[in-house]
Amino acid sequence: MAKLIAIYKQPADAAGFDTYYFDKHVPLAKTLPGLRSYEVSQGDVMGMGVKHGAYLVALLEFDSLAAIGEALASPQGQATAADLANFASAGVELMMADTRRV
Amino acid sequence: MAKLIAIYKQPADAAGFDTYYFDKHVPLAKTLPGLRSYEVSQGDVMGMGVKHGAYLVALLEFDSLAAIGEALASPQGQATAADLANFASAGVELMMADTRRV
Repeated sequence: MAKLIAIYKQPADAAGFDTYYFDKHVPLAKTLPGLRSYEVSQGDVMGMGVKHGAYLVALLEFDSLAAIGEALASPQGQATAADLANFASAGVELMMADTRRV
Repeated sequence: MAKLIAIYKQPADAAGFDTYYFDKHVPLAKTLPGLRSYEVSQGDVMGMGVKHGAYLVALLEFDSLAAIGEALASPQGQATAADLANFASAGVELMMADTRRV
C-alpha cells in the first residue's frame, strides 16, 4: 500500500482554508488517476519540539509508489499540485509513503 | 472515526530511530486500550514552505475522540507518551483528529 500524505500547516484564515479545500481542492484531487481512497483528518495538535502545528492531514491511497508518481505526472496531478498555491500559503509537506499496518 | 496522528520530524540517526520505534515504541503503543488499528507511513518528503520534513507518520485509529482521551489517560497511555522522550528528540506533533473519507 502506498499513500500520498499532505500535511497542511496552520493557516492564518482557517475558515477560508476549509472552504477552498473542501469545495475546490478535494474535487480536483479526486480526479487523480489511480486514487483508491481519500481521507482527511482535522483536530487539535499537541506539539513537542515543533514551532508550527499541522492543521489538516490528508491521506490519498494508491496501489503503489509508482502509481502515485504516475498520478502526479498526469494532467490531473499537475492541476492538483498547481492548485496548492491557491490556498496552502502557510505551507504543506507532501510525503510519498510506503504504508503498512503494524 | 477518530485518529491519533503522530508526525515525527526527521531524526539525526534515522536507523537508530527506526530500531527503537519498531522494536520498543510500537509494541508499547499497541497496548493502548481501545486501539482499533495502527498504520505507519514512511517515505520521501517534498516540502513547500517548511524547513523540516516529516519522517514518519503514524495513525492510530479509535472509535472516538473520547476514546483517544481515555487511552492517553490510561497507565498504558502515560507509558507510551513518556517513551517519546527516548527516541523522538527531533520533535513530534500529536494530533487528536476527526477523520473522514471525502
